[in-house]
Amino acid sequence: MFSNIVKRFLPTIRHCRFVSSSSSSSSFSTNFSYRQYLVSDLSNINLIDRSVSLHGWLQYRRMNSFGVLRDHSGLIQFILPSSMKEERQIFKQTPVESCIYINGILKKRPEKDINTNMLLGHLEIHVTDFKVINACLPVLPLDVSKYHESDESTRLMYRYLDFRRDIMQERIRFRSAFIAKVREFLLKHSFIDIETPSLFRRTPGGAREFIVPTHLQNGGLFYALTQSPQQFKQLLMIGGFDRYFQIAKCFRDETGRPDRQPEFTQIDLELSFVSRENIFSLIEQLLVACWPDKIEKIPFPRLTFAECMSRYGTDKPDTRFDLEIEHNLEQLSITSPISLNDIKCIIDDNDIQYDNNNRKFLLNKTDNEEECLIKMGRLRLKLADILEKQYKIELRKRRQWNFLWITDFPLFTPMTDDRTKLESTHHPFTAPIDQHLSLLSSKKDWSRIIGQHYDLVLNGFEVAGGSIRIYDSFIQRFILHDILNLPIEHLEHLLKALEYGAPPHGGIALGLDRLLALVLETEHIRDVIAFPKTSNGKDLMAQAPSQVEQSELDYYFLQINKKKYH
Amino acid sequence: MFSNIVKRFLPTIRHCRFVSSSSSSSSFSTNFSYRQYLVSDLSNINLIDRSVSLHGWLQYRRMNSFGVLRDHSGLIQFILPSSMKEERQIFKQTPVESCIYINGILKKRPEKDINTNMLLGHLEIHVTDFKVINACLPVLPLDVSKYHESDESTRLMYRYLDFRRDIMQERIRFRSAFIAKVREFLLKHSFIDIETPSLFRRTPGGAREFIVPTHLQNGGLFYALTQSPQQFKQLLMIGGFDRYFQIAKCFRDETGRPDRQPEFTQIDLELSFVSRENIFSLIEQLLVACWPDKIEKIPFPRLTFAECMSRYGTDKPDTRFDLEIEHNLEQLSITSPISLNDIKCIIDDNDIQYDNNNRKFLLNKTDNEEECLIKMGRLRLKLADILEKQYKIELRKRRQWNFLWITDFPLFTPMTDDRTKLESTHHPFTAPIDQHLSLLSSKKDWSRIIGQHYDLVLNGFEVAGGSIRIYDSFIQRFILHDILNLPIEHLEHLLKALEYGAPPHGGIALGLDRLLALVLETEHIRDVIAFPKTSNGKDLMAQAPSQVEQSELDYYFLQINKKKYH
Repeated sequence: MFSNIVKRFLPTIRHCRFVSSSSSSSSFSTNFSYRQYLVSDLSNINLIDRSVSLHGWLQYRRMNSFGVLRDHSGLIQFILPSSMKEERQIFKQTPVESCIYINGILKKRPEKDINTNMLLGHLEIHVTDFKVINACLPVLPLDVSKYHESDESTRLMYRYLDFRRDIMQERIRFRSAFIAKVREFLLKHSFIDIETPSLFRRTPGGAREFIVPTHLQNGGLFYALTQSPQQFKQLLMIGGFDRYFQIAKCFRDETGRPDRQPEFTQIDLELSFVSRENIFSLIEQLLVACWPDKIEKIPFPRLTFAECMSRYGTDKPDTRFDLEIEHNLEQLSITSPISLNDIKCIIDDNDIQYDNNNRKFLLNKTDNEEECLIKMGRLRLKLADILEKQYKIELRKRRQWNFLWITDFPLFTPMTDDRTKLESTHHPFTAPIDQHLSLLSSKKDWSRIIGQHYDLVLNGFEVAGGSIRIYDSFIQRFILHDILNLPIEHLEHLLKALEYGAPPHGGIALGLDRLLALVLETEHIRDVIAFPKTSNGKDLMAQAPSQVEQSELDYYFLQINKKKYH
Repeated sequence: MFSNIVKRFLPTIRHCRFVSSSSSSSSFSTNFSYRQYLVSDLSNINLIDRSVSLHGWLQYRRMNSFGVLRDHSGLIQFILPSSMKEERQIFKQTPVESCIYINGILKKRPEKDINTNMLLGHLEIHVTDFKVINACLPVLPLDVSKYHESDESTRLMYRYLDFRRDIMQERIRFRSAFIAKVREFLLKHSFIDIETPSLFRRTPGGAREFIVPTHLQNGGLFYALTQSPQQFKQLLMIGGFDRYFQIAKCFRDETGRPDRQPEFTQIDLELSFVSRENIFSLIEQLLVACWPDKIEKIPFPRLTFAECMSRYGTDKPDTRFDLEIEHNLEQLSITSPISLNDIKCIIDDNDIQYDNNNRKFLLNKTDNEEECLIKMGRLRLKLADILEKQYKIELRKRRQWNFLWITDFPLFTPMTDDRTKLESTHHPFTAPIDQHLSLLSSKKDWSRIIGQHYDLVLNGFEVAGGSIRIYDSFIQRFILHDILNLPIEHLEHLLKALEYGAPPHGGIALGLDRLLALVLETEHIRDVIAFPKTSNGKDLMAQAPSQVEQSELDYYFLQINKKKYH
């Protein structure tokens, strides 16, 4: 019932119910339930020719006598004997996906009737009692029995039916098991699981935060939903907690960005008295311990930001294939492994030429080298698509895991709309490397400063980011106020806290949803989230967000102003 | 360093770093850190006369040579030899609570110098290297070295310093360990850890929910922050997940209610194919597995709501002491174990008389018997206070854990402001007991219907509540619409879901903050929450909630309307 990949990983979790200290006489699945067996329990050969009862869903029905019962552990065929006239009559009218109860004798099927497509295809139940617990509507909006996938909006609208498909059971159960392994590893290594607030105040810089009106002081006061536990985890380090982690719900108002969610989950952690090397080692060992496939080698390879941009034209390269950018005097080039004569439209960008004799894509370097590199980076990915789809050359192997650390980012980046101003490349709490501390004193050197920020990239996706933090109040204040010109009054509490013997500290956050989407090979992160919203932030099942009554707004001293937003 | 109670519980968690498969040569505390040892590592006798280095905080300093270094694992004295002239000069000016590094030789102290008040009072470090990593301001707003507690607002304002006190380290670490045990138990029993959204839509009835404005569709659309995962967990059961749990963050806008928090944490769970008995047994075994003290007997005692009110005048009685209410014809009475002649003002309520000859408090039953019982229930608690405080009679023993199930609540309760209308006693998803299903058909019988709701009470506090749910769409619709007159359009998705073969299911939620406050014997739940808000919803450290810029409100098509709220 489960794919091979997940099977390798789940057994310990899924079967642990058989190794518990349960006092139950028959099966652990009866613990805390009036249900006697799960389907998977029936593989126990001692149950053959014994009376068993099951609760589940009617997966399939043929005429008035043959049915298949499903629960999350598997499928089992059952037969209503001709003597059960009344039950057969009811059964005949029972829609699939109805919740049913059966009791009967577990039998081996005759050799010729064995269904090799079913795990328990050699067994069947000769029913002695049959009940419909809760009938299902006769027409289903989506097909739950097949692997076939309905369109996504139907799946989201009827998520509870979508959950009944094997693949969704597998994904959500895998998520639970994966998080359990992460926790186990971190707790074993003395990390403390600490919940931090979601209702907080605006953090200057960074993503747009949702605001939450309050009734306090006749209106005008708002919480902000935390976009990450960043400040809290630093305060915990200052408080002497040394090793913190949290599977943290984070909120960002990023409606409209593809494959983002207004709320998402991070594996968030922070340590005192650590170097970048320590954090790299921690995360590498964490992933080895929790990843369902064997991770071939640690430590993971590393690239500096500069080298990464130069070779791949992106700071999150997919290194499962080469096609690296070559620097030839005034030109950038990518050498293609085959002639692309017969491909009509490969390049959208008029600046890139194709030299068929040397099988090279060429781009003349213009003033902005970074922009050129980004163009070549995009070309590299497009080229990979074409080679895979049209030429059937497998460049990006499934279940090959190319983890890669990116280091040595510039601490500051010129702002897009005013390149004379700087913003933090990561966030304003990231420390410069020690050797560049002195560059803070001269404005002209600021853009040269390298920060102690690091990203973890997996097969072309950024899956984690973190940094060693500033623990000196003076430097933190200088960067916030003098370099970034941020409104410092929002962060006075953190600046103050740094004055009370703050320890050196650093941390990282892993994007759980993205990690799971990669390891489960789903198209969207929505497929690894139980109740996701659409890319424009809607819950299609419950129709959220929705209007609220005026009295509700009055309570918060608010009114809607439909004037156009500029 | 830790209280005895917690010591019994924490060792497995706190010492697990020594049993890890770490490849570190010296100590597990060096893993993923450049710190060599924690103070607690120094109890290893093999380290005596060896060179050790530590990172921590300066807890105490005497003159220019004696100091005590603290980390979360303990305290160690160190001595700067007279040869270290320069370091002594620096040390002399180092404020306590500065973050420091020391390196030196670990020595046994001479017999006469052993400090029996310190766990490692027989040891000291003869320093060979001393560094101030980050100096602390010379004046601290609160005393972190002593058990003495500053006033709460100072503690909340400087939470990061409050964390450095042993008692706070203990509480937050205990919380982490307790949650880990809860998870371990539930995962072992096949529960799946599933995250559900915080951004959802208004649920009719129940507590006031925070609203979150969105930018969608030119304003007017709001999320609501979920007050509990109730709907999601029912949808998960309908989706075939059978056993769900979540350590769930919940939100309620209950500003101003004492010892409540706008965000709080529940151990939330739900199962398919369960009876009340199954859930009682589950929770009893869960608590036995996770409670730091031995729980003397399971199953826990049970009382029906009616009997509970009749005997204790409350639905959450503290049963560690008797003083039960007696029913004598037209009077209610509580017999006091001693004469209270000399107590001046024990009863605020003029209706209650004291009969000194029979040592009884008496109240004539008036029309509303329930009100009378509640009065006597309050008297019972007041009486207990007086007997304990003034007469030194220990009624409510510390660390005696009287768990108690309350069952058989009425399904509906007349509304306070219009007693002809009914509201749900628990919530509108609770099922009636099977025998009372037929009473739904006649309006006059509605108030007699008993629900399948249950509360768990511990020493006078409600610590959990749950129910067996309605799984029939028709009954659910009838109760929501015809009996409760709730706006059904907010719940169409759930009503629809019940039509697709929903299984019978039920669940419970434990109030984690309250449970921890009880087991850690703290006055407020704020003491077991890392970053709590005050009772009126403020974060004193960061000054949240705060004002937001008008541009922010414009983005959400909102404006503030200061008109008085009615």
